[in-house]
Amino acid sequence: MSDADAGAGGAGGNESDDIDVDFGEDGLVPAVAQDADSGEVLMLAYVSPEALDRTRETGEAHYYSRSREELWHKGGSSGHTQAVREVRVDCDADALLYLVDQTGGACHTGHRSCFHRTIEGENVGERVFDPDEVY
Amino acid sequence: MSDADAGAGGAGGNESDDIDVDFGEDGLVPAVAQDADSGEVLMLAYVSPEALDRTRETGEAHYYSRSREELWHKGGSSGHTQAVREVRVDCDADALLYLVDQTGGACHTGHRSCFHRTIEGENVGERVFDPDEVY
Repeated sequence: MSDADAGAGGAGGNESDDIDVDFGEDGLVPAVAQDADSGEVLMLAYVSPEALDRTRETGEAHYYSRSREELWHKGGSSGHTQAVREVRVDCDADALLYLVDQTGGACHTGHRSCFHRTIEGENVGERVFDPDEVY
Repeated sequence: MSDADAGAGGAGGNESDDIDVDFGEDGLVPAVAQDADSGEVLMLAYVSPEALDRTRETGEAHYYSRSREELWHKGGSSGHTQAVREVRVDCDADALLYLVDQTGGACHTGHRSCFHRTIEGENVGERVFDPDEVY
């Protein structure tokens, strides 16, 4: 949507000025979840149009699980939800950034962030829960 | 990258423990570039095995340009390079996080970050250069 359409965007409006996300051939865009306070990058997952709609409607992060091939409400079973403060879109509109308040940890391994290892194999992340007690 | 190829790894690289990145069917993984000091998420792009090798060898961020279908040394023409302090891998080894020192701005629009817009179309990013003078 072009800037020329600006003008109808009321308070918190999400209608006319919304950026038209390019979901590409597979109907998904990568989304980065970042802790809104600390700035820590928590995870990267994929978002379908339905997942984006549900995220904006509910204020909780939704993704599309490529392995389960279904809509995925993050934390729906573990309780480790992500309250989404803001959704940002990149310059090409083919990647998203969720600024979130993360309950518990984002990673199924029990770490706060899924990016808890360097490529050299060193664990640099904080473990915040025991996955055996959650999943 | 196989362990056998890891001999040229980046600074402080420990070869044998290197994480085996899952480049998937298309041979690419998404990589998030984050400012190592401020924590700002700068961009998301894709990385091929060659791009990862070049990144680790040179200490400057390399990606694979899907539009140009070629190895992309970020900032190679604009001068807006990214010195990579650390490469992290997520729990599934199918996404990367580059912790970088960004020269200038990451975005071709002149913004510090490519994620300079909310999905509602509000510009929330800092413009740090004039693209007409750079590209």
